[in-house]
Amino acid sequence: MIEPMMATMLGFVTLDAAVDPALLQQALKAACDDTFNAISVDGECSTNDCVAVLANGASGVTLGTGDYPALVDALRQICEPLAIAIVRGGEGATKLITIRVTGAQSNVEARRAARAIANSPLVKTAIHGGDPNWGRLVAVMGRSGAAFSLAGAAVRLGPVELFTEGTPHDERAPEAAEYLTRDEVEIEVDLGTGGNGASRMWTCDLSAEYVRINAEYRT
Amino acid sequence: MIEPMMATMLGFVTLDAAVDPALLQQALKAACDDTFNAISVDGECSTNDCVAVLANGASGVTLGTGDYPALVDALRQICEPLAIAIVRGGEGATKLITIRVTGAQSNVEARRAARAIANSPLVKTAIHGGDPNWGRLVAVMGRSGAAFSLAGAAVRLGPVELFTEGTPHDERAPEAAEYLTRDEVEIEVDLGTGGNGASRMWTCDLSAEYVRINAEYRT
Repeated sequence: MIEPMMATMLGFVTLDAAVDPALLQQALKAACDDTFNAISVDGECSTNDCVAVLANGASGVTLGTGDYPALVDALRQICEPLAIAIVRGGEGATKLITIRVTGAQSNVEARRAARAIANSPLVKTAIHGGDPNWGRLVAVMGRSGAAFSLAGAAVRLGPVELFTEGTPHDERAPEAAEYLTRDEVEIEVDLGTGGNGASRMWTCDLSAEYVRINAEYRT
Repeated sequence: MIEPMMATMLGFVTLDAAVDPALLQQALKAACDDTFNAISVDGECSTNDCVAVLANGASGVTLGTGDYPALVDALRQICEPLAIAIVRGGEGATKLITIRVTGAQSNVEARRAARAIANSPLVKTAIHGGDPNWGRLVAVMGRSGAAFSLAGAAVRLGPVELFTEGTPHDERAPEAAEYLTRDEVEIEVDLGTGGNGASRMWTCDLSAEYVRINAEYRT
């Protein structure tokens, strides 16, 4: 997920409600799927990532299955900024990139495409260079393994539609390049299948500094 | 495979024997599996890679099924240096890396591990920096999805055994670092399962120049 030699990720979440351990574990897993498991700096798994939740019941409040959606939501609110902070701290990172995938045949397929984009060196270097390169995004969508239909596909950088229904809108490239000068950018792609599958991930750009840090770090 | 915007890979092989088209296609596929499909610069598929073989029969020699092994071998001999030349020409590449995986439960599993190593930014930056980082290799073997047994695993850089049967040999790190100063290096890993699965791939190191080229290239 991040880097196995310099740091390991140990996450601890505490709450003062009483919750059945099985329900709490289920809620933590659901929250992590959309937060800690939805980030990538460079596609490298850490060797001992861990998130633990502790509930001591000190508040006197007991949460049951009826509270499950609220519990998951609360855990997500805690975990999301922590997960994003890891990406911001990625080696050599200069930009936080939020990737939204829609139009997939399932959420699993959407995540597959999002992960392929998050780990694409060509997408990450393009964003680093401020290049609104819809071609690299479409290429990664096509190779990701998720079902994909070019005729219905779309690429947006922030508010700028660069590619819709198989057609590029290169006249909007200057506007998109201006958008990419920000420190936080959003990439939204539609896989064009007409499905309702969607996913969100966070990654960072790939800079020469990433190479320097990881090439110069000695065992 | 390489980079979809600056170049596409179009490979053409000709021979003057007469060969049944189906047999020739089968032989070409077998040769490509071990050559053009066994290289990666950065894990990015080109959008229209293509290898074609043309056999005109001008020599008057007809090859049949009995000649299949020789035909595959001949095609491999042609395709291998061409495939390796693509890796040598990878953006910012300073080193050619040959990856050999053994001890896998199948050739498919061995290829999976080899591909994970070939596309690992941390392995590629370590080689770029001349760092004999067996830890990064073991971590990638473990996350590759291939069956893996640490107790039987091994890592060699050229002739230098850095890790065998779950034990690092850090006293050999200086020797391995000296080996990594070469332009062409070999990484050999044993997945430790005791299986006979094996695979070979070629990749290059990841340099700051790779980032510069791909961040500065504008659509």
